[in-house]
Amino acid sequence: MKNIRMIIEYDGSRYKGWQRLKDTDQTIQGKLEGVISELAGKPTEVIGSGRTDAGAHAHGQVANFQIKSDMSLKEMKQYINHYLPQDIVVKDLQQVSARFHSRYNVSGKKYAYYVLNDSIPSAFLRKYSYYIPEKLDIVAMKKAAEGLVGTHDFIAFSSVKKTNKSTVRTIKEINIEKKGQQIEFTFVGDGFLHNMIRIMMGTLIDIGMGEEKVSYIDKIFKGGKREVAGKTVPAQGLFLMEVYYD
Amino acid sequence: MKNIRMIIEYDGSRYKGWQRLKDTDQTIQGKLEGVISELAGKPTEVIGSGRTDAGAHAHGQVANFQIKSDMSLKEMKQYINHYLPQDIVVKDLQQVSARFHSRYNVSGKKYAYYVLNDSIPSAFLRKYSYYIPEKLDIVAMKKAAEGLVGTHDFIAFSSVKKTNKSTVRTIKEINIEKKGQQIEFTFVGDGFLHNMIRIMMGTLIDIGMGEEKVSYIDKIFKGGKREVAGKTVPAQGLFLMEVYYD
Repeated sequence: MKNIRMIIEYDGSRYKGWQRLKDTDQTIQGKLEGVISELAGKPTEVIGSGRTDAGAHAHGQVANFQIKSDMSLKEMKQYINHYLPQDIVVKDLQQVSARFHSRYNVSGKKYAYYVLNDSIPSAFLRKYSYYIPEKLDIVAMKKAAEGLVGTHDFIAFSSVKKTNKSTVRTIKEINIEKKGQQIEFTFVGDGFLHNMIRIMMGTLIDIGMGEEKVSYIDKIFKGGKREVAGKTVPAQGLFLMEVYYD
Repeated sequence: MKNIRMIIEYDGSRYKGWQRLKDTDQTIQGKLEGVISELAGKPTEVIGSGRTDAGAHAHGQVANFQIKSDMSLKEMKQYINHYLPQDIVVKDLQQVSARFHSRYNVSGKKYAYYVLNDSIPSAFLRKYSYYIPEKLDIVAMKKAAEGLVGTHDFIAFSSVKKTNKSTVRTIKEINIEKKGQQIEFTFVGDGFLHNMIRIMMGTLIDIGMGEEKVSYIDKIFKGGKREVAGKTVPAQGLFLMEVYYD
């Protein structure tokens, strides 16, 4: 039995997210399992580093599967890319130790979120960014982002219901940079709660629009309630960029 | 009566090209005329700088129309962008002299063609480039491109049938540059015959693949026949970048 690790890129526009669903095969995991099960000649589970939302994209999702096969890695990658829809691409495929598990072994992740911030929209970026015509205050958003970096209980920045599991996470880095018509926000952390990036983004945008002050971040941490934070911005601007393993 | 000039960006993926057709409204010109006729309160023709092929894109198509309206230019642009589908965007809108005509007054055009040239395809560029996994020889293509620059009868590089109109055109500049996974080819000239860029591209790719030598270009000019030149590459890699007026 070989344990195979893949790096996967996908345009999530047409999909209901990463996670396999019973009532539709329009999921990234479902599409991969369909092709890899054919390759393996039997039902084969593809384990991802974690879910991504419906409409969200990835440049560097990681997933692994077990297979008994004499095919070379190169042939395996060619086979999978040949049968996958064109909006899902296996960029890299390696054999790894039997103990490697895409989800359990994650040590961190990097996400990017794109805001199209220009008086004129874009015919090409419309499915890959969130359009805000009003000019955002990047300096204020950068200051506010400093308040998010570090180890905090992020429950108010998530759609997680009250739970016994820890909602404490560590954000190592947030970068905000104007790139052409877009503002790129990148987040590196040990892990992110459900909708956490999209709610942090909604909050930063409120600050960038001047509707809230930089101190809004502290208020949300202190309030500890989802209702206090900004709205959940659309998934279409969200990209899983990289998954880290020790 | 005001004469209004627009700069238009479009993702041509869903469309049957620029030119209005009788049996479908899935054309760029058709969509623009629909919205602008509503704005004008009567059927209004939108004159483009020239056609673009089904599936081809534009960052800088130019078109003009005549309208009697008290609306400000800003309001006009907002109205049009609001009612256009999201894959067509009016980037600029100006009032110009009554004599300006988007097609008759063209002095040159700039096109770009993108080849995705990487062993791994891309989930995001699939509709905006032509995928060739085999590594192309950029040096050879650059040399061959020098043979295309200048004033020539380009009939063999076009799908134009024998005609009384001149098929002589001047190409001022061809640039070829590797950009990430893509090779960007840009063409500046006083005008291009039907399918001329796509056939020049098919020819350059034959040379980049090593299937033909650099001298192939001369052979095509001397032969003067469409059959001698390379194939017509897909429209999805083609972008109208800019239209020049004196």
